[in-house]
Amino acid sequence: MKQLIRLLILLFLSYSSFGQEYLDAEKSDPNTMGWMQEFPPPKDRTVVAADGSFFVFPALRYSVCHMRQFLPTTEVEASRGKRYTFKEKPIKGIDTVTFTPLNGSGKMTWKESLGKNYTDGMLILHKGKIVYERYFGELKPGGVHAAMSVSKTFTGTLGAMLIAEGVLDENKNAASYVPELEGSAFGDATIREILDMTTGLKYSEDYSDPKAEIWAFSAAGNPLPKPKSYKGATNYYEYLQTVQKEGKHGEEFGYKTINTDVMGWIISRVTGESIPELLSKKIWKPLGTHVDGYFQVDGAGIAFAGGGFSANMRDMAMFGEMIRNQGYFNKQQVLPASVIKDIMSGGDKGAFAKSVYGESLKNWSYRNMWWITNNEHGAFAARGVYGQTIYIDPKAEMVLVRFASYPEAKNAKIDPTSLPAYHAVAKYLMSK
Amino acid sequence: MKQLIRLLILLFLSYSSFGQEYLDAEKSDPNTMGWMQEFPPPKDRTVVAADGSFFVFPALRYSVCHMRQFLPTTEVEASRGKRYTFKEKPIKGIDTVTFTPLNGSGKMTWKESLGKNYTDGMLILHKGKIVYERYFGELKPGGVHAAMSVSKTFTGTLGAMLIAEGVLDENKNAASYVPELEGSAFGDATIREILDMTTGLKYSEDYSDPKAEIWAFSAAGNPLPKPKSYKGATNYYEYLQTVQKEGKHGEEFGYKTINTDVMGWIISRVTGESIPELLSKKIWKPLGTHVDGYFQVDGAGIAFAGGGFSANMRDMAMFGEMIRNQGYFNKQQVLPASVIKDIMSGGDKGAFAKSVYGESLKNWSYRNMWWITNNEHGAFAARGVYGQTIYIDPKAEMVLVRFASYPEAKNAKIDPTSLPAYHAVAKYLMSK
Repeated sequence: MKQLIRLLILLFLSYSSFGQEYLDAEKSDPNTMGWMQEFPPPKDRTVVAADGSFFVFPALRYSVCHMRQFLPTTEVEASRGKRYTFKEKPIKGIDTVTFTPLNGSGKMTWKESLGKNYTDGMLILHKGKIVYERYFGELKPGGVHAAMSVSKTFTGTLGAMLIAEGVLDENKNAASYVPELEGSAFGDATIREILDMTTGLKYSEDYSDPKAEIWAFSAAGNPLPKPKSYKGATNYYEYLQTVQKEGKHGEEFGYKTINTDVMGWIISRVTGESIPELLSKKIWKPLGTHVDGYFQVDGAGIAFAGGGFSANMRDMAMFGEMIRNQGYFNKQQVLPASVIKDIMSGGDKGAFAKSVYGESLKNWSYRNMWWITNNEHGAFAARGVYGQTIYIDPKAEMVLVRFASYPEAKNAKIDPTSLPAYHAVAKYLMSK
Repeated sequence: MKQLIRLLILLFLSYSSFGQEYLDAEKSDPNTMGWMQEFPPPKDRTVVAADGSFFVFPALRYSVCHMRQFLPTTEVEASRGKRYTFKEKPIKGIDTVTFTPLNGSGKMTWKESLGKNYTDGMLILHKGKIVYERYFGELKPGGVHAAMSVSKTFTGTLGAMLIAEGVLDENKNAASYVPELEGSAFGDATIREILDMTTGLKYSEDYSDPKAEIWAFSAAGNPLPKPKSYKGATNYYEYLQTVQKEGKHGEEFGYKTINTDVMGWIISRVTGESIPELLSKKIWKPLGTHVDGYFQVDGAGIAFAGGGFSANMRDMAMFGEMIRNQGYFNKQQVLPASVIKDIMSGGDKGAFAKSVYGESLKNWSYRNMWWITNNEHGAFAARGVYGQTIYIDPKAEMVLVRFASYPEAKNAKIDPTSLPAYHAVAKYLMSK
């Protein structure tokens, strides 16, 4: 139990902000820090999994590229046949593109923004070709990086695919597919409400609140042996059955990870395949990806659909480019075009405006676990804490993938120096 | 501490024999058993990592194909460029080849032997082409399987390679490369003695003895959080420094896993790379392998060089075929031919004869962590518990890879129905 408490405290600290100063991107580079480099690594340069400290900055910067070294995982098999290879056509001048940070004064260059945001990897496609590709810190071209909540977008897209295929009815409720959810808040929530996260759940994801339900969810999914005194749920699905309702479904956007895990459960129940298996079969292999990705799993082997995916940056870009091309990629229709049309049509803006994001992400919406900016280019994105993103700008014919390891799990601190930067680069590419 | 004790007891039971009857291969097929198949899997069909039961038959038959789902791992990157593809030329009649089991009466067919030995995968190359390939139970063509002590052969081959390259001197002792080993049994053991396992170590690997040192080694390498009362070594390298000498070095073969882990430490110290990194760079990528393999790691991220490798069967066959071709494969000299010559020249037969294997494996020797049969075909092999092998028959131009999940960790029970079967198939192939 002490181990678990210590882990929770460490995670709590890592998610809290005390206004402290962090080492900058260069000083916190895992290679500069010397994490796990010698044989054996010195004690103070050993990244430790057991106590949870592996996920606290600056060790976090090492760990995001090596999640499997700390957690049980299951693979998302890449293509075993012909792989897709991007054409490369580097475009000069991107580094010196300038933009004005949100709520900021003065200008910043694109290159400056990469360091500011603790970027580990940045890849930009323009018209399907790689025009910009950079690797920093611990990320290697052949390696993988934690996608964090970008994972949700894969689960959501699979859900939308099953609706398009007629396997799921978006108007039916969760309990009609997974009867075990009957007594929970999800029982009478529709597939659509779950995919768009407009469910009314008594569930706080406020990492700064030690009583937030997120901690019980995390404990349930922790694959470490449970202490004898532990009385909670022992896997993700057990936990999901205990979630209580708060308010009504369908009225307000509430960004809560467990929606994705419920969606993962529903998808697995109706297809008979785990999320890693289905993602591999339906998307990862058809794309012609090169590197096996993987999901973190709980003690029952259940993948953490809401945040446990790690993948290669170019493979991520293949997914983004397929979405930009209405589901067509690698000489085949990977997903029905109607799925992408539905994503791009966006979610309920009114429901989004009522949420805590209504102020900072004005006019946005959320659909099939994608964030829709409704900006002048019609950009939409997958987003994950510490700065992960797949950002698709249809008008500029641009797909951008960023992996990052920002010291805090707060995209609100990263957006000001990234969203306007993406838009500025998009406009720059349109001018070329 | 209770968790650890329970784990050790379970492992102890799994390695012990009480003459019990086991479910046969068909009945214990993981798909028949239904391990981890539903969402969620029923409690009695959930393979549990935390208490160690995942590695007890019949759950073992599922786990050997999914080690990463239970343990922290680190990848052995497959080729990211051009992959090698085997030519296939199936040869009929292999299933009905008959042989006489060792010490047995009557005949057995090749096909019968596969079930008898709980075979998960069998691949036979003849003159470099796939002539026979079968998958059973949980093993899939694109998947991986635990190699168990076949892992040793990779570490040993890398060691021999470094000798050939002049990086290591086989006559120097371990402490001259890793000073931390000075006070241990390895301090004055030469690289050659370590590679051929003729070190004199106070170290028992008798799984049926609860006081055997193997348990302290296993506890050190266990990546689970250590209980507060735990006073032992906290990673593999810490443990290796505590090993005491017994007898003299260089006189008797003693098959002890820690020789391989010491070799792994020495290799990493002189190359600055972990065993997974070096194996990937020097062998796995040049071979043109298709599937990332992986090593189980301890709490300090150190790979279990003596037994922690999982890999794909065809990739394993590439390695075997490269060795059979004197180091040449995929249009390049992957290893110096002198390394293979040295392996095939064999180890000290006298030292081997004195060992516990002297009786059952007559006239064999052990060199660079390969088993040399000295049979009429000059066959030599990598061998791992539960029936793993890479078996190379130079005269028959045959390479055979077997993955298996025999109920007990006793190759002495598997050899009688496999060694003569391999030899019979080799002769059959020579007749084609």
